[in-house]
Amino acid sequence: MIILGIDPGYATVGYGVINFEFGKFKPIDYGAIFTCPKTPFPKRLEEIYDHFKEILYLHRVDVVSVEKLYFHNNQKTAMDVSQARGVVILAAQKSNVDIFEYTPLEVKMSVTGAGRACKLQVMEMVKRLLLLKKIPKPDDAADALAVAICHAQASGLSRKILMLK
Amino acid sequence: MIILGIDPGYATVGYGVINFEFGKFKPIDYGAIFTCPKTPFPKRLEEIYDHFKEILYLHRVDVVSVEKLYFHNNQKTAMDVSQARGVVILAAQKSNVDIFEYTPLEVKMSVTGAGRACKLQVMEMVKRLLLLKKIPKPDDAADALAVAICHAQASGLSRKILMLK
Repeated sequence: MIILGIDPGYATVGYGVINFEFGKFKPIDYGAIFTCPKTPFPKRLEEIYDHFKEILYLHRVDVVSVEKLYFHNNQKTAMDVSQARGVVILAAQKSNVDIFEYTPLEVKMSVTGAGRACKLQVMEMVKRLLLLKKIPKPDDAADALAVAICHAQASGLSRKILMLK
Repeated sequence: MIILGIDPGYATVGYGVINFEFGKFKPIDYGAIFTCPKTPFPKRLEEIYDHFKEILYLHRVDVVSVEKLYFHNNQKTAMDVSQARGVVILAAQKSNVDIFEYTPLEVKMSVTGAGRACKLQVMEMVKRLLLLKKIPKPDDAADALAVAICHAQASGLSRKILMLK
């Protein structure tokens, strides 16, 4: 199962593609899409949409896993991130891919086993689970990989595999 | 100039298409796109996107005028409306249409001449300016027409025409 994890944003959108088979994770691709503040907002949305359509097609993604948004402070940022998130979800929908969403707490719990884990602990676990030499950069990519891992764990496949052993 | 005004939402998205030429308004089409709460959210976004692409193409829209969002209460609703708004903006961008946005206050000021005008006064003015027999229904359509009228006024064409008379 090819899972694309997404850390929503509009200036930086993190993504991480992993393969999850027989209870094992394999990183395929990760990084971030950057859009320029000088570019008009509609054009930035289009760039994000087009990039995601390409990633979805290129890696034959089966499932998209995207983080739920929680904002308490800057309302303007919250709404702009939400607009970009809508566009990412549309890209997945237009690619006939199933879409799942997880709260930041669910992601933390799933990756580290602890809801109070700090950001660095989550990233360290992403590195370990994907057998990477370094913590993926930028942070947005590591976050996106964590969201992808979260879906793999939640899909129950890992548990089934463990039971079969 | 064909202007498509939009009142953003995800359950109901109001739209209003007007022609503005030689200082005169002519209503072309208005209504609302409704999406069903039982439909998965990504599918609802897709329905909104597809409908708007169709409207943009059908009426050979030159300009999209969309209301800026201001929310103070329900954050969940604010973020879902923002996601749908992102998709509408993407539809306009993909159709190579210029996009302008106006605050609710700018729309009120433009249509009624008063920032404190109530909703009914705005609707009444929409009816008068477009020479309609009744206030357009649903409210979302009337609001969308107001946003379209606002852009027409803001574009400065009306002032030029007045000066030429």
